[in-house]
Amino acid sequence: MKHIITKLNQAFDHRIRLGIMSILMVSDWTDFNTLKETLDVTDGRLASHIKALEKEGYIEVRKRFVGRKPNTSYRVTPSGREAFQGHLNALEELLNNAKE
Amino acid sequence: MKHIITKLNQAFDHRIRLGIMSILMVSDWTDFNTLKETLDVTDGRLASHIKALEKEGYIEVRKRFVGRKPNTSYRVTPSGREAFQGHLNALEELLNNAKE
Repeated sequence: MKHIITKLNQAFDHRIRLGIMSILMVSDWTDFNTLKETLDVTDGRLASHIKALEKEGYIEVRKRFVGRKPNTSYRVTPSGREAFQGHLNALEELLNNAKE
Repeated sequence: MKHIITKLNQAFDHRIRLGIMSILMVSDWTDFNTLKETLDVTDGRLASHIKALEKEGYIEVRKRFVGRKPNTSYRVTPSGREAFQGHLNALEELLNNAKE
């Protein structure tokens, strides 16, 4: 029997990605600064993890102007939601096993 | 309020490390090959993640001979157990929040 970790999704290994996804799972469009402040990370690190999730098709980006200021927001895609849900289920299984 | 991911331990980000720790949490000395087969990883990748956990003081190593064959085993240290337990608690919190 394969170990549960084989069901964990490599794309969500890093805790910043867990954080981004767990915020977007329960929100609609969320802007870059909100993610940055909530997760307490630098612009560069956040941008690189966002890009990775976008490349997987797990989040989508919207760029627009709010007044004269450019504003970039993100939300989870249906496939991102499904993939993250599968990851959470595997994590839950792992938690239950580790507690036994 | 800081996001839950700030309570996640960077040392356990990678799923192979989650796998190693979750096995050792519920076992006594476990040898390299058992970990390797259970987690379905290559020697090199397993060795590098083991080394990282050892460096943190989260697991300890025992080298001995079983008959004429060298045998290397690992077990979790008390500080590893405590750190991983904290990580699991934070993951649990994250799971609960993401489900809401």
